[in-house]
Amino acid sequence: MTSAPTLQPKFLPTRNQLGVVAVGFSGGQCKPGVDAAPMALIEAGLIDQLKEELEFNVTYDGQVHAYTEAIPTEDPDYRNMKKPRAVSAVTNALSQQVYEHSMAGRFVLTLGGDHSIAIGTISGTAKATRERLGRDIAVIWVDAHADINTPESSGSGNIHGMPVAFLTGLAKEDKEDTFGWLRDEHRISVKKLVYIGLRDVDRGEKKILRDNGIKAFSMHDIDRYGIGKVMDQALGWIGSDTPIHLSFDIDALDPQWAPSTGTAVRGGLTLREGDFIAECVAETGSLIALDLVEVNPSLETEGASETVRAGCSIVRCALGDTLL
Amino acid sequence: MTSAPTLQPKFLPTRNQLGVVAVGFSGGQCKPGVDAAPMALIEAGLIDQLKEELEFNVTYDGQVHAYTEAIPTEDPDYRNMKKPRAVSAVTNALSQQVYEHSMAGRFVLTLGGDHSIAIGTISGTAKATRERLGRDIAVIWVDAHADINTPESSGSGNIHGMPVAFLTGLAKEDKEDTFGWLRDEHRISVKKLVYIGLRDVDRGEKKILRDNGIKAFSMHDIDRYGIGKVMDQALGWIGSDTPIHLSFDIDALDPQWAPSTGTAVRGGLTLREGDFIAECVAETGSLIALDLVEVNPSLETEGASETVRAGCSIVRCALGDTLL
Amino acid sequence: MTSAPTLQPKFLPTRNQLGVVAVGFSGGQCKPGVDAAPMALIEAGLIDQLKEELEFNVTYDGQVHAYTEAIPTEDPDYRNMKKPRAVSAVTNALSQQVYEHSMAGRFVLTLGGDHSIAIGTISGTAKATRERLGRDIAVIWVDAHADINTPESSGSGNIHGMPVAFLTGLAKEDKEDTFGWLRDEHRISVKKLVYIGLRDVDRGEKKILRDNGIKAFSMHDIDRYGIGKVMDQALGWIGSDTPIHLSFDIDALDPQWAPSTGTAVRGGLTLREGDFIAECVAETGSLIALDLVEVNPSLETEGASETVRAGCSIVRCALGDTLL
Ligand SMILES: [Mn+2]
Ligand SMILES: [Mn+2]
Ligand SMILES: [Mn+2]
Ligand SMILES: [Mn+2]
Ligand SMILES: [Mn+2]
Ligand SMILES: [Mn+2]
Repeated sequence: MTSAPTLQPKFLPTRNQLGVVAVGFSGGQCKPGVDAAPMALIEAGLIDQLKEELEFNVTYDGQVHAYTEAIPTEDPDYRNMKKPRAVSAVTNALSQQVYEHSMAGRFVLTLGGDHSIAIGTISGTAKATRERLGRDIAVIWVDAHADINTPESSGSGNIHGMPVAFLTGLAKEDKEDTFGWLRDEHRISVKKLVYIGLRDVDRGEKKILRDNGIKAFSMHDIDRYGIGKVMDQALGWIGSDTPIHLSFDIDALDPQWAPSTGTAVRGGLTLREGDFIAECVAETGSLIALDLVEVNPSLETEGASETVRAGCSIVRCALGDTLL
Repeated sequence: MTSAPTLQPKFLPTRNQLGVVAVGFSGGQCKPGVDAAPMALIEAGLIDQLKEELEFNVTYDGQVHAYTEAIPTEDPDYRNMKKPRAVSAVTNALSQQVYEHSMAGRFVLTLGGDHSIAIGTISGTAKATRERLGRDIAVIWVDAHADINTPESSGSGNIHGMPVAFLTGLAKEDKEDTFGWLRDEHRISVKKLVYIGLRDVDRGEKKILRDNGIKAFSMHDIDRYGIGKVMDQALGWIGSDTPIHLSFDIDALDPQWAPSTGTAVRGGLTLREGDFIAECVAETGSLIALDLVEVNPSLETEGASETVRAGCSIVRCALGDTLL
Repeated sequence: MTSAPTLQPKFLPTRNQLGVVAVGFSGGQCKPGVDAAPMALIEAGLIDQLKEELEFNVTYDGQVHAYTEAIPTEDPDYRNMKKPRAVSAVTNALSQQVYEHSMAGRFVLTLGGDHSIAIGTISGTAKATRERLGRDIAVIWVDAHADINTPESSGSGNIHGMPVAFLTGLAKEDKEDTFGWLRDEHRISVKKLVYIGLRDVDRGEKKILRDNGIKAFSMHDIDRYGIGKVMDQALGWIGSDTPIHLSFDIDALDPQWAPSTGTAVRGGLTLREGDFIAECVAETGSLIALDLVEVNPSLETEGASETVRAGCSIVRCALGDTLL
């Protein structure tokens, strides 16, 4: 069914070097189970498919990282954040792992974990791409949610609703053990951020999006223009000379196709639209990293394997699998 | 998630005055249960959401009206119509209620009930808008069905398949107790009527639509052009200077999203498309009234709450809720 | 709901002469049950609807053909093909039946059976149309699969994955009892072949499609352009002066609407898109034959009737049923 992609990447030295990081972390939110996603994806054959069908040369340490050693025993709430030091420590360690893959010129695939881990992945590729190519990266954030609350605007205090605020510098913190390790070199510009699939955005987040002129395509836009035109606009906004990090929250898909996720919201992307987004980004030749997050195989008995399959499909499409 | 709408309405003195009428009436068709819809919608939190999240000032008498006192004990078929006097009496009383809200400059939200009640709601806003603003209203009828049978063309005799015929004057009747109370001031023009979502139209109705040049967008049109372009065309047909009454039959949605309805038909609108229609009409600033009809919570054990949630979603979108 | 179509066909002498062939054959693949599809479709009322609602004059011998007499007792694999002589004999007999209907100026509706039977149906209409009108036919192949493997490129050896290769002459065979009966007069040009709905295409098939410049619209194209624009392009490619044979594999639909089929693939057409394709082809006035294949009522307990209903809907739309 599958052929190895033939596209030459613009911002990677070779097409087929892939670094994989498996992150079994669920501390950015409250429901257990999302830490089991990397193993479920791998057991469904994902890495084997990437090797055999898409002919990637995979660098993977064979471990699902829980970062247990990095997680402090005492971790009281701080500035309304739950488990701030744990999330900070884990994303700091992850940032370093992703940075190393990216510095080596590998495409970086991170299998989460909840979406707080994007603090680690995006900071890692942002820093590495600045050092390796002297370029700022763009981020395409596919999600039902904007995940751009500051600690103060958040209702829940769950950090998986805040990664974009920390990554763009809308939220900052000096304490080294609570995201103080994030420096300018790790950050991205709000001008280089594009959302796709939004449909459950907090009132405070709506204001942040408006005030900062952030490009966001909600489900309403997808219905109005069709996913084809939305992708044209999204990629046109980024331009063809910018490396792209795609951060894909499986809850962007409608619960019909991805029910096993912590904060499912009706009215989402069809599986076809999800795959299409990934294919379009892959076609640009600008993609340098992909996160797949928020698959939680423990939440549904029946829907778990469907959700895992959807996740595998998104990853394969983003890595160059095509229908024809 | 929600912010109060900021749009200034064109044909209402203020943005936030909302009159609600709850109509527990099922006599326009044969299946019991649709009379329980208003209570199901209210118990799902609809009115509270409109107050708290969308910041409406709600005028609601706190009753689900059954109009028992208006319903005659003897009501034999007449001109092939079933329960003609009951439906006539109920819609006449409802027409007066809606008229009063509309005369007071309130947006009128009517929670049905079967679709026969639109004889009451639309006649009420048509009359009030003529008196208040000297304008004819337009009607957007979102439905799997055209509901434009005359008593004579109808196969079933159920009046919920006839409201548009009575409202446009294609069906008329002199007897006061059988819709004789409908006068020119209550009626709408076939030129100001737009259908969206049709897919189960009787042979006689097809001829009526053609003969009268009625603007109708079937599911085929939605597939051909996409819902975005269909809404552009539908709203362009009406123009920007006409008050709009939106009459939304939940069976316009595909049974996948709204199974609990009396005459479900496959191949319908997705929930996303339903919400999108409501959002687009809301965006015009011309909307003055909304009917939500044909939710029947008793028809499905599993699908009832899904259908009620879909109904709430449509109402919120029509009243200005937005994703971003 | 339905009116008789009014469109005048371009390549048939009258609008309402319909030849029906029911083919209870499953030998082109390995799963039993697809031979029961014609009876399931007929019991669901399909032929009655065509007669009564669409006012066709139906020529049907009243039999579901199993062609038992034509099937050899010995049928070892040959050139990697499974049951080559059986499939050859059945399709040869079917070709003759279809040829006779088509020579008589009837629209030919064939109810399969697995997709190998298209070797019979398309060869029959191709030959008849050359003799009757001096024209080459075009084929629109709606399918999740390309069915264009040669015996040598096929992984499975199942002939239902090869019909297009034999029909276009990409695969040839001299032995009379193994498709040697197929001559130039039976064949179609790769330039007159259009695929719609592809999403599971073998690596070898991808190469065949590319090397032969075959027009193919995958699900990716449908997401990118919308089904409306895809149909414009597909029909534009064929042009308005070419008779069309539509071969519709029910597995083109998403398993959500058509689960009961032998090789279901996720990410397929919605029922609305399937109906829309059939309606658009019907609207051209160029359609002269339709195959409906791969409905397998035995594969699912719950989904079988849904799949049968979807099949009936496709046939009705292709035969001129319209929503308005
Ligand atoms: Mn997220
Ligand atoms: Mn999310
Ligand atoms: Mn209705
Ligand atoms: Mn209806
Ligand atoms: Mn096929
Ligand atoms: Mn197929």
